[in-house]
Amino acid sequence: MNISVTHYLEAALKLAEIRKGFCAPNPCVGAILVKNNQIIAKGYHHASGSPHAEVDAISKVDPSNASGAVLYVTLQPCCHTAKKTPPCTDLIIKSGIVKVIYGFRDPNPAVNGHTDKILQTAGIECTHYPITLIDNFYASYAYWWKHKRPFTTAKLAMTLDGKIAGRNGKRIQLTGNTAQKFTHQQRKYTDAILTTAKTIVVDDPLLNCRIDDIIYKKSLYIIDTYLRIPISANVFNSTEKITIFHNPQISKKEQDRFQKYAIRFIPIKANNNGLDLLEIFNQIGQDGIIDLWVEAGGKSFQAFVQNSLLQRAFIYVAPQWLGENTQLAFSVPDPLKGAIWANSTILGKDSCFEFKWSGY
Amino acid sequence: MNISVTHYLEAALKLAEIRKGFCAPNPCVGAILVKNNQIIAKGYHHASGSPHAEVDAISKVDPSNASGAVLYVTLQPCCHTAKKTPPCTDLIIKSGIVKVIYGFRDPNPAVNGHTDKILQTAGIECTHYPITLIDNFYASYAYWWKHKRPFTTAKLAMTLDGKIAGRNGKRIQLTGNTAQKFTHQQRKYTDAILTTAKTIVVDDPLLNCRIDDIIYKKSLYIIDTYLRIPISANVFNSTEKITIFHNPQISKKEQDRFQKYAIRFIPIKANNNGLDLLEIFNQIGQDGIIDLWVEAGGKSFQAFVQNSLLQRAFIYVAPQWLGENTQLAFSVPDPLKGAIWANSTILGKDSCFEFKWSGY
Repeated sequence: MNISVTHYLEAALKLAEIRKGFCAPNPCVGAILVKNNQIIAKGYHHASGSPHAEVDAISKVDPSNASGAVLYVTLQPCCHTAKKTPPCTDLIIKSGIVKVIYGFRDPNPAVNGHTDKILQTAGIECTHYPITLIDNFYASYAYWWKHKRPFTTAKLAMTLDGKIAGRNGKRIQLTGNTAQKFTHQQRKYTDAILTTAKTIVVDDPLLNCRIDDIIYKKSLYIIDTYLRIPISANVFNSTEKITIFHNPQISKKEQDRFQKYAIRFIPIKANNNGLDLLEIFNQIGQDGIIDLWVEAGGKSFQAFVQNSLLQRAFIYVAPQWLGENTQLAFSVPDPLKGAIWANSTILGKDSCFEFKWSGY
Repeated sequence: MNISVTHYLEAALKLAEIRKGFCAPNPCVGAILVKNNQIIAKGYHHASGSPHAEVDAISKVDPSNASGAVLYVTLQPCCHTAKKTPPCTDLIIKSGIVKVIYGFRDPNPAVNGHTDKILQTAGIECTHYPITLIDNFYASYAYWWKHKRPFTTAKLAMTLDGKIAGRNGKRIQLTGNTAQKFTHQQRKYTDAILTTAKTIVVDDPLLNCRIDDIIYKKSLYIIDTYLRIPISANVFNSTEKITIFHNPQISKKEQDRFQKYAIRFIPIKANNNGLDLLEIFNQIGQDGIIDLWVEAGGKSFQAFVQNSLLQRAFIYVAPQWLGENTQLAFSVPDPLKGAIWANSTILGKDSCFEFKWSGY
């Protein structure tokens, strides 16, 4: 292992992380230009349509300075033109960079078959140098390319006795401030949030990210088979780009109830268990959502698990016992079917168990 | 706050902790002799009948050296003769110590009303200097003096859905190695362990402490109303000083089944809910057990809570879901009635919630 290469790639990763949750459908990328063992420029991708990380870094130095430099970049640079910005390989060649070291091979076939060859043909050394942290960072991006569906993380809070709500489904605030901060941080890192009509009707959440008094709005997908969410729901003001998945039988007239909001309606064919979940996740994938965060109830959670649509879950456990006649989180015998325990942490008074599903 | 006093008292506390779990009916005590700002001797109480911490420390220096020294001791020195060893005040006076600073006032009225006066009359400065760590350390000792019952901690492991066992009560190993290590450490710190016939019949545990390949045996109390534990139970070899609490109707003949073991049988009057639990805890208190560790099932746990006999609980949560038809830990609506959440930690994959009951 080359310590300085790892060091520079990890520094590039720190840059890539800055805009995690804000680049979709693009991956987040960080880049560093190094010359004479000194970092001469840093760059990262800000959002779809804005310059790639490599361009952002190179633009920060005088053109004559880039000559002879080494470019460390978290993701294999692009070389194709079927997108909003010109290929990075062109600029890399033009700038006189002598070596490119990238951490993750782009699963996009328009990139991975060509970039190295293009650079090498131009006399630029080009090396794929994988490191675990970067592999993990792009797990969702790789998942998206493999399945064209979002890498999906669900969060669920329960009590010591596996309860999610009180009597008659009454909402109870289970987790403390620290767990809520963690939730908001995770929402920020995600490209979009998925919830259900039931969650909106019962909890009326904001589903935005509130971190250090800054509010970030996220794209929201709502599964609302019969359009039963009230037009007064908080999410209409606290989120953006709302998409509602509904039963095809819903009439245009019923949609008109929401006409003061710019909502996209997508009919989804229904089966015995409600709307076709695979079709919903395919639609979200088509929108270029790489990371999806799910906040819904136990029934949705177990349905997603049964349909192999979850890749990760955070189960928060609050130290209280709700007792008889309160609502159990799950109703199936094996709600975590196929899940592998990944991590346990403490979030204030609550604990948080992370589970992953393999096979992605 | 005097930093050096706190420093010396905390050092004395470290010494007191060495034999925690092995001094009952005595409290664990640590002592330090300081002269010219240097620690000249350390001592601690090893076990009932062996020298007190003060004596242990003073015995380590040449008698002429102790003269002029300051004695830091976690607990107020003793002054009474109604016990196995002579009063510490005599030796302190004789040794020429000029000042005594102790961290916790002995709740024993034979000590707390007299020691300071005896020392002061002899021209020795004597100060009670309370610090939180030492107050916490003696919480169980203070509880014992107030109620003449042991300060009792129960441990219970459950799953994410509050289950304690599988179908038909089938034993399932829920927690991992780290949680088990914690359990063994806690057993070591305790003066005795309490369990039930049901736990022995179902789990057949060893209930000893296995720490770094060293095995410590502990006194064991078993609630076995109708003497139904098998004579082949592991505990007969892995623990010591076994006491069985049983229904008074049990005949001498039934006890004879266990005659190859030196077991003490104590009949306890029964009420509608089984044996009188308060009477059991009073008996254990009479034995001078200060810290009691409970390993039993959910039914016993909730019965102890209902009778206000628990002062602390550790609830371990293992990241698994057992699902329908498996055994719920508790059957009452509020099994943690009156408990106050105190702490949450991670033990390997498992989480551990500490609860305390106030009013002790």
